Formats: sequence, structure tokens, C-alpha cells
Amino acid sequence: MDCLLCRDPGGEIVWQDGSCRVVRVGGREALDYPGYCRVIWRAHVAEMTDLDLHDRRHLMAVVFATEAALRAVVGPDKVNVASLGNQVPHLHWHVIPRWRDDRNFPDAVWAPERRPAPTGRPAPAIAALHDAIVQNLAEEQGGTFA
Amino acid sequence: MDCLLCRDPGGEIVWQDGSCRVVRVGGREALDYPGYCRVIWRAHVAEMTDLDLHDRRHLMAVVFATEAALRAVVGPDKVNVASLGNQVPHLHWHVIPRWRDDRNFPDAVWAPERRPAPTGRPAPAIAALHDAIVQNLAEEQGGTFA
Repeated sequence: MDCLLCRDPGGEIVWQDGSCRVVRVGGREALDYPGYCRVIWRAHVAEMTDLDLHDRRHLMAVVFATEAALRAVVGPDKVNVASLGNQVPHLHWHVIPRWRDDRNFPDAVWAPERRPAPTGRPAPAIAALHDAIVQNLAEEQGGTFA
Repeated sequence: MDCLLCRDPGGEIVWQDGSCRVVRVGGREALDYPGYCRVIWRAHVAEMTDLDLHDRRHLMAVVFATEAALRAVVGPDKVNVASLGNQVPHLHWHVIPRWRDDRNFPDAVWAPERRPAPTGRPAPAIAALHDAIVQNLAEEQGGTFA
């Protein structure tokens, strides 16, 4: 089995621990939705309900810390959170900042383009995202994952 | 403010408690993805990180109990889980059973249609979904939410 997310980080690493990593997505998606992150479980598992309760809570804590970090650092109009895995059945979450003038709003980012993506919205720095994630995990988990 | 999900259940109610409800979606989506459910937070809140930790964990426990119920009752090839809220900014999760021959696979359900949806896959009964959700919540939460 050759799995893309077993082989490759899938983006620039923002934060990681022994069980999962947060990456800042590159390429076109980074231009369309600056700050787009993925949270990727390390082990090759397909569904959230393949994880035990402890792992599930840990992964969601990281997902929501990433959501909180994006709200603090890039201040989007909305955040979209999704775990699909139809193309790559290796558990990962999309955490996507959305703006009213982005290429698909108010549709999902997987829907056809409604307009060209606006330019001039800079991608957030890795360090700023990292620090915000650490702070949010610390607040939520009493420092366990900081 | 006139919010669709404050006003309307949003589908046939499968399970509910004081803070959220699981509905089986009707219409075209029910034909395309039989068993498609939404988990809707009762209060009008936009983002997961607007909830406190306790509420967030409770909502996710219900979302994953719904995922487990769909896996047990309809046996899809994959489950997609997403909270977007761009159209209706009232916190809700899509829990969508996917099949390799469904109308969009392996794309997201919000992507353009790839093929006509297959017919003859029956929608699961409300009672079967309800019982599977109750069982999964009881296993996970020691019966608190049963």
C-alpha cells in the first residue's frame, strides 16, 4: 500500500506530537484560503470511529486548537472543519478559514469556483500559528500537549 | 434574525437531548446518500470554538455515535464528517455515508456530480439509527446520554 499521508508530511509542519501533526497547506489552496491547515493522524486509520475514545478526544482537541489559532491569527469570516478521506483514506481534518469574498463562499471549497480568489491576503506565519495552537492546547488540556 | 435551523428541525428527528438533535436528511440528499444525517446544536452558535470544552465534547460524542450508527446500520464504504455553516451559520455537522458508486465519489458531496446516483439502496429506518446511536453513546459515556 502506498499512502500519500504515510509517505509525505502533506504541507509545512506547524505543530506535531507523537500521534498527529498540523500542517499549513501549500499550492493553490494556500492562495485561495490563506492559513488552510490539515491535521493528520500519524497512524494509517480511515475513520474517526476506528480510534479509541482517548485518541479521538486528543485529535479533536488539536483540530479545535487549530480552529482557534486560525480565528486568532487570520480572523476569517467563518471556519470550515471536515474529515472526508475519500481520495486518501488516512484520517485527516481540513481546517479552512473562509471569507465572504473567497473563491467559493458560501459554498464548500470543493464546489465550483464562484469568483477569482482575492489577492493580497497574506498567509499567516508558521510561528504565529504554532504559538496559538500551543496556547489553545495548554488552556484546554492543562498543558498536557503543550 | 431568521435562522432556518432555529425555526425548523432540518429533517426527521432520530435522537435528541437538551442540547442537540440528530436528524435524517430528506429530499435529494436522502436519495443520493441514504442515511445522511445532520447533528444540530440547539443554541444559535456559529463555531465549535464558541462552545466550552464540555459542550464541544458532548457534541462530538453525538457526531461520532452517529458515524458509528451509520457504519453499523448502512455499512458505507466511507463516512464524511463536516461542519461548514457558510450558508446557515448555526452550528451543525454533516455525517454522510459514502459509496464508491455514489454521485460524487471520491469527491466531496458538494463537488459536481460524476454519475447518476444508484437506485435501490434503501434509507435506514429511524428506529434502527436511534437504537444504534443510543448504544454507542452508552458505550462511550457510560450511559450518561442514553
